[in-house]
Amino acid sequence: MYIDQLIDTPVAWMSRRNTGIVISSRIRLARNVKGAAFPGWAGENESIKICTDFEKVFEQLPLFDDVSSFEMDKLSAIDKQVLLERNLISSELAQKGKGSALVVAEDQHVAAMINEEDHLRLQAVRPGLNLKSIWKSIDSVDSEIEKDIDFAFSAELGYLTACPSNVGTGLRASVMMHLLGMKLMGELDAALNGLTSIGLAVRGILGEGTKSFGSIFQVSNQSTLGVSEEEVVKTLDKLVRELVGHEQNARARLVEQKGNYLLDHVARAFAVLTHAHLLSSGESIDMLSALRLGVDVGLVKNLTVLKISEVMLVTQPGHLQKQVGRTMTEEERDYLRASVVRDKLQKVKLVK
Amino acid sequence: MYIDQLIDTPVAWMSRRNTGIVISSRIRLARNVKGAAFPGWAGENESIKICTDFEKVFEQLPLFDDVSSFEMDKLSAIDKQVLLERNLISSELAQKGKGSALVVAEDQHVAAMINEEDHLRLQAVRPGLNLKSIWKSIDSVDSEIEKDIDFAFSAELGYLTACPSNVGTGLRASVMMHLLGMKLMGELDAALNGLTSIGLAVRGILGEGTKSFGSIFQVSNQSTLGVSEEEVVKTLDKLVRELVGHEQNARARLVEQKGNYLLDHVARAFAVLTHAHLLSSGESIDMLSALRLGVDVGLVKNLTVLKISEVMLVTQPGHLQKQVGRTMTEEERDYLRASVVRDKLQKVKLVK
Repeated sequence: MYIDQLIDTPVAWMSRRNTGIVISSRIRLARNVKGAAFPGWAGENESIKICTDFEKVFEQLPLFDDVSSFEMDKLSAIDKQVLLERNLISSELAQKGKGSALVVAEDQHVAAMINEEDHLRLQAVRPGLNLKSIWKSIDSVDSEIEKDIDFAFSAELGYLTACPSNVGTGLRASVMMHLLGMKLMGELDAALNGLTSIGLAVRGILGEGTKSFGSIFQVSNQSTLGVSEEEVVKTLDKLVRELVGHEQNARARLVEQKGNYLLDHVARAFAVLTHAHLLSSGESIDMLSALRLGVDVGLVKNLTVLKISEVMLVTQPGHLQKQVGRTMTEEERDYLRASVVRDKLQKVKLVK
Repeated sequence: MYIDQLIDTPVAWMSRRNTGIVISSRIRLARNVKGAAFPGWAGENESIKICTDFEKVFEQLPLFDDVSSFEMDKLSAIDKQVLLERNLISSELAQKGKGSALVVAEDQHVAAMINEEDHLRLQAVRPGLNLKSIWKSIDSVDSEIEKDIDFAFSAELGYLTACPSNVGTGLRASVMMHLLGMKLMGELDAALNGLTSIGLAVRGILGEGTKSFGSIFQVSNQSTLGVSEEEVVKTLDKLVRELVGHEQNARARLVEQKGNYLLDHVARAFAVLTHAHLLSSGESIDMLSALRLGVDVGLVKNLTVLKISEVMLVTQPGHLQKQVGRTMTEEERDYLRASVVRDKLQKVKLVK
């Protein structure tokens, strides 16, 4: 598969099951090859060998039917940004060169970064709240790989990783959530503070260190040491279900007590998205998030949350530049983004 | 004329000539009756007598055909607010009771406040830049009145007034201007600072001490002492023409250099005005101001600046409450305002 084909394919979390409050679930495992230096310390030849070894293993795995491998030194800056925006690679991998690669299954739901911070970062993503089934599927891929490759493992600590924060399970489970109801009811900050105080990590949609847009957050576990994978997954699943309950409750009260405010919020977002001629990435996410809530509460016609996810993705800077085939200035992107959004939402209507 | 009829009548600055950058011109004269105490010091009976005397004089003036008199003690709070929003009375007059009145000609272009700060505040308003003709017309009304009433006058100082800042000519000439082009080009603050540094007063559309909305400003003279009426009018007229030139220049550069930004600004304003369900007074003026610029530069169809002025006026808090016939909360007003605006702009279209 070429990168151009990959871009024409929906990402794994885009499907009819991507509805409501939980947008997608993801689990990633960090693994390293026994006896080999971590990628940060390895020489180029050692990295290339590890990369080649992994690629061979993946080609034989049934889940990686039609596997594609993208070596970082062969990708343009725009292609890397596209992969970043699809959450298939990290910005750390994007900065690597020869010997670092992304290996991805055709439906993009399982992917592996080779020689990022660790030798292997294996991830599986699914739409909706699906942590338990994702764990089963990624655990089986991990076991398949372990038949061919010896992982660095300590009986006392568990899997060994380049950064101590991943030692143990090497597992990070995360859920992408749309929490605009709580935001509009003024209850979001307290809820997110509650999550961090019990040891979960919360970050905005555009990655670590960026301000949050669209009240879309990724909630994930922090601890990898002294807990089993099943425990981590079960705890996160339980907390996410509680959070979904809070969000549903906030939405119900929003409809009941602040109907005009909600209607105004959704209608304005629709108005801006269908009329603006310059639209920044952040504002676009904010407005699409409001429209998504509008779809969920029945204020918007001829639109699905799946379509909203698609518009959010294809209007990211990398995707826009890939479409045009060249680097663009911020104003050029804002102009194209507005035009793409107007076009994609042409048939959408407000119920009132 | 009853106040309900007055509200159904366009205000004097609303006419087909209300186009472009100068919305309206206004001149007011402050006069006091010789030998009588200023309103702030006079007793109720003395005020009532002066009020009656003036009303009789106005009834005989040809310009005040179909004159109407509104005594402050007989008006409801909402009615007073309506008159305030039409610039027919000041908030100072609105706070007065028995013995204070507004006298207004049917077309509302000449009006007089009796027993506000001075015994007589005579004003004339016209759409567009019309200071010289307004001066002629108000000067002739002033002379007519002076045939019947002796004004307090000093050969050395000129007309005597309650506040020293009006002594001399008692004349305040002002022009309401729409300066959004300079605002969007980032040149407005410098221009307004320039005006105040040469002795002009500048205030926002919603009156003294309020933040400015819609880049609509009233520019007026400060000095009344040691200058002739003709000089004041001539100087202000000249400066306003210069300012109009700057604004035209800014708009031309906006169209030429920042076309997308301008298009985006106008389209967003249109979008919000035609979709919002809660619209504050200030935001409404901001958005209508952007739409007015859109009309002026040819980006908007099926809309005149006259219609925009009408919408700005009838969506002011007093006018909305007068329409409903009762006091409303801010949210009720914002909801009704949004609905009135959507209705009034139903047929408006963007060119692109």
